[in-house]
Amino acid sequence: MAEQKATNVHWHEGEVTRADRERLLKQKGATIWFTGLSGSGKSTVAVALEKYLNEQGHLAFRLDGDNVRLGINKNLGFSAEDRKENIRRIGEVAKLFVDAGVIALSSFISPYREDRDDVRKLHDAGGMDFLEVYVECPLEVAEARDPKGLYKKARAGQIKNFTGIDDPYEAPLKPELTLSSDKMSLEDEVTALVNLMKSRGILRD
Amino acid sequence: MAEQKATNVHWHEGEVTRADRERLLKQKGATIWFTGLSGSGKSTVAVALEKYLNEQGHLAFRLDGDNVRLGINKNLGFSAEDRKENIRRIGEVAKLFVDAGVIALSSFISPYREDRDDVRKLHDAGGMDFLEVYVECPLEVAEARDPKGLYKKARAGQIKNFTGIDDPYEAPLKPELTLSSDKMSLEDEVTALVNLMKSRGILRD
Repeated sequence: MAEQKATNVHWHEGEVTRADRERLLKQKGATIWFTGLSGSGKSTVAVALEKYLNEQGHLAFRLDGDNVRLGINKNLGFSAEDRKENIRRIGEVAKLFVDAGVIALSSFISPYREDRDDVRKLHDAGGMDFLEVYVECPLEVAEARDPKGLYKKARAGQIKNFTGIDDPYEAPLKPELTLSSDKMSLEDEVTALVNLMKSRGILRD
Repeated sequence: MAEQKATNVHWHEGEVTRADRERLLKQKGATIWFTGLSGSGKSTVAVALEKYLNEQGHLAFRLDGDNVRLGINKNLGFSAEDRKENIRRIGEVAKLFVDAGVIALSSFISPYREDRDDVRKLHDAGGMDFLEVYVECPLEVAEARDPKGLYKKARAGQIKNFTGIDDPYEAPLKPELTLSSDKMSLEDEVTALVNLMKSRGILRD
């Protein structure tokens, strides 16, 4: 027992706060919310930003279809109600990551303005940074890219309610940043994001 | 333009992996799942462990009623179906944190064995550590503590289906750790947790 006593752990009183975690990570938690058409380049820039941040010693985490649609949202379909709930849950998860001090990179079409604004309000209520990034790309360009072959299926009527084809995409009115993925290089896109994050104090200058 | 060019950012090819994030954080992501009666001391030990970890430079994040029931699970009630979905979502969120390299501290009564086992399976499938910690405490002791006055209300019939009163608590059969909160000091509980985490390689020895 004397031996075990010697290895006992110690800590101070009180709860750990978001500020404590941010101090540990040397960054501010924030949600970077990429929105745009399928094929607009949301994931491409999110992956590049994540890589850059990791190499700079920052903790970021990407939320995307792969880890959300197959996980926490696997019991949701594509009805109007389910699409709304899909974005709501993603917003709540992103908020938890921000509270943890992490930079959450959310990469979903998220076509409806109201749903995105709801996520913004959630963050505002928690005093958390929400940066809406509009990945702008003409439909013709996105459709020509068609990385997952989804536009082809939508045009053939095999997929219904596809954003840009038979369902609307509501572009942000006041995004914190617009990236024109058909005109900008990936390097310039990431540079613009990093500059924005520095100006907000999410990253130190 | 030349000036902007000079500040351009650079990074290497490839996606960031969980291993990259764990290297950055100098820890392994894991879920520590505290289960036990209301008033058993789950949150008390989770708060203490979180504080210890933060002071040691580790990133942990607590999932509890405050940030989950009022957030991602605010559209769930207390029916059998909703309680199951409540635990499922918490498990999926915890898994995302583990993927981010974070030590997720989940603190919920989570009375049903099957629901906890489902969360364990989710983690197993992702090659992730899931440590079930049974915070053991006799009902009489928990009820005497009654920190939120809930037992009193349950006994008065003001709350229905209350775990331990008119709803069962199914104790873990093979928890990774049992903490007898009525017999152990908080310091001994945290020490046992830290030793377990070191033995699993979640924390470096």
